[in-house]
Amino acid sequence: MKTREIFRLKPPSNIGIVGGGQLGRMLVLEAKRMGYNVIVLDPKPNSPAGQVADEQIISDFSDIVALRELATKTDVITYEFEHIDVELLKSIEKEGYKIYPSSNTLRMIQNKYEQKTILKNLGVRVPIFYPVTNLDELKEIFYKLNGKIVLKTSTGGYDGKGNVIIKDINKLEEAYKELCNNELIAEEFIDYIKEVSIVIAKNHEGISFYPVSENIHKDSILIKSIIPAKISNETEKIIIGIAEEIIEEIDDYGIFCIEFFIDSNLSVLVNEIAPRPHNSGHYTIEGCITSQFEQLIRIVTGMPLGSTKLRLPCAMYNILGNNRVDGGYCVEGIESGLELEDCYVHLYGKSETGNLKKIGHITALDYSTQNADLKAQKALSNIKIEFLSM
Amino acid sequence: MKTREIFRLKPPSNIGIVGGGQLGRMLVLEAKRMGYNVIVLDPKPNSPAGQVADEQIISDFSDIVALRELATKTDVITYEFEHIDVELLKSIEKEGYKIYPSSNTLRMIQNKYEQKTILKNLGVRVPIFYPVTNLDELKEIFYKLNGKIVLKTSTGGYDGKGNVIIKDINKLEEAYKELCNNELIAEEFIDYIKEVSIVIAKNHEGISFYPVSENIHKDSILIKSIIPAKISNETEKIIIGIAEEIIEEIDDYGIFCIEFFIDSNLSVLVNEIAPRPHNSGHYTIEGCITSQFEQLIRIVTGMPLGSTKLRLPCAMYNILGNNRVDGGYCVEGIESGLELEDCYVHLYGKSETGNLKKIGHITALDYSTQNADLKAQKALSNIKIEFLSM
Repeated sequence: MKTREIFRLKPPSNIGIVGGGQLGRMLVLEAKRMGYNVIVLDPKPNSPAGQVADEQIISDFSDIVALRELATKTDVITYEFEHIDVELLKSIEKEGYKIYPSSNTLRMIQNKYEQKTILKNLGVRVPIFYPVTNLDELKEIFYKLNGKIVLKTSTGGYDGKGNVIIKDINKLEEAYKELCNNELIAEEFIDYIKEVSIVIAKNHEGISFYPVSENIHKDSILIKSIIPAKISNETEKIIIGIAEEIIEEIDDYGIFCIEFFIDSNLSVLVNEIAPRPHNSGHYTIEGCITSQFEQLIRIVTGMPLGSTKLRLPCAMYNILGNNRVDGGYCVEGIESGLELEDCYVHLYGKSETGNLKKIGHITALDYSTQNADLKAQKALSNIKIEFLSM
Repeated sequence: MKTREIFRLKPPSNIGIVGGGQLGRMLVLEAKRMGYNVIVLDPKPNSPAGQVADEQIISDFSDIVALRELATKTDVITYEFEHIDVELLKSIEKEGYKIYPSSNTLRMIQNKYEQKTILKNLGVRVPIFYPVTNLDELKEIFYKLNGKIVLKTSTGGYDGKGNVIIKDINKLEEAYKELCNNELIAEEFIDYIKEVSIVIAKNHEGISFYPVSENIHKDSILIKSIIPAKISNETEKIIIGIAEEIIEEIDDYGIFCIEFFIDSNLSVLVNEIAPRPHNSGHYTIEGCITSQFEQLIRIVTGMPLGSTKLRLPCAMYNILGNNRVDGGYCVEGIESGLELEDCYVHLYGKSETGNLKKIGHITALDYSTQNADLKAQKALSNIKIEFLSM
């Protein structure tokens, strides 16, 4: 491991967060509880994180002056999303400011082609992938991969955006035209039987692993997570082994999430790495002794890692916007969730909703994942997103 | 019970909090998690609660215009401290705004003479007490109460302020002169063997009781709480019975805390009632399924009460300022607490410390109160409050 300067930020030190969404918000709530000051950078005024932070710098993420202002005003910077200009971060680092994870790590992870190449070189199994530079090449890859591919932008995709599954040659051109203004990769479509993920914490002391989460997606958006995942001890060991290898290769401080596919041969493939707290780790707020958000605050302030132990089995469901309500909204029916024991409703304070937009989540704890799942399902089923009547 | 209008505030509704201290801060953190907007009223800019709220109205508590602004901008008001002008609250209520608990309740509780008179009339045992209007009367009371009294201001006291124990006739005049600009009461000094308290939640559906906490004070300031209190089942039943009777008499919605003395005959006396979340209930944040702060947010928004079940035995220690550091400060050594499993450090973001000023607290959970106590003690012993070096 590289040697790094030892630092320890006493409260009240100042933490900077690039990105003012829900992940930033949950980070701020933990940081404030621990007595730190937080400044958030986000272009949208009154962002979910900005609402609870000491200050929000309202600026585009591409504005070096604003980024430098954030660095000047704070003792350490972290980020809640990975689509930040790496060159800007790098120049801030060169000016002597601390950013965790570093711009090097972000570069490695941000570009899916680079990320997968590193994983492949490490000997970690990933879906077969190719860079795509033109339509003819894409057709060739389509046949090579047995007529089932996922076409992805190398950078910038999230929640299914910049991501098309193609199983019909006639859809190839349309999909290509939609995405071809970006750097593209085509991946083997994995007919997985399970998707799981693991959140990993790494600081100057070492590595901690959170329990493996089993995830259900729909249209590439996370619908629910069940913890612990229903996998064999052997599969769990394999997952932790791969995660450890990857995190040692990354060799940086932060919270990371690795998503995996398990195919019908029970073989484990890495899907994606995120260098930040992850939606599939929201259960850690009530479900674990130390949440992924508190853990990241501990890491960037040079504090010891907290226990990642699970208190009880959990189920987490996202609260998603629908195609009926766009713009200002209120949330009806949270009382059904609040009535249930050990069931928690989180709402992110987003000013607008939209189809499939994540506006909150529900976590339920119980003595079995099945009970937790039923409880969270029940809570979610009564929630209605309605137009805000003024 | 009085019938009251049924209301239910959907997120994002607006909650107003009078008072921007640590109790307000912990309320805001829960309200924001649940998707509510919060406006705080406090004279000090950048108050602990104001830092995390959507807005802080900076104003004296006695300013009716500011209080009306808070009412106009929010859907319901609550408060984090009881020394508010009841007449102002009443006039705001008369304008049609909702305040929980009501100004009537606050009036009943705010004045210690009135509070104790109500309790006495209810048949609840309280220390013998008398109003004091002049020094001669005080002398007479001193002899009547066997030369051991507590002289208190009827309103406005907290953390030992406005509160003198007198066991020497020669100290009587000095103490009287110090406090005599206020309405005063003199109370029998109780040579208790234990102090305990109970937090109670009351809403439109009913009453819930939190586990009884055992409290250690020094110079009338809470040092630590241990939960569950080491008391017999019988004593616990008596405490819950008294609490129920009092809460039914108060007949209002809110979080209440009742403090008790247990004397050497194991007899239970009521010391004081607070119409708000209480320092001795901070353990509920990690220790119970629903914290006293989330519970109050549920109550004022018309949501169902949450479970008050204890997850594990707890110990809570306050982090208090010392007489060495006054003004701006930083907190060293929190890492010793963060290293311990299931040990939580809360810091309130107060801009200044001072002797015995509450700047944070530590809660530890474990399988026995003894282990929890040792853990929290260890965490606290390494915390140092130092001058902030600029």
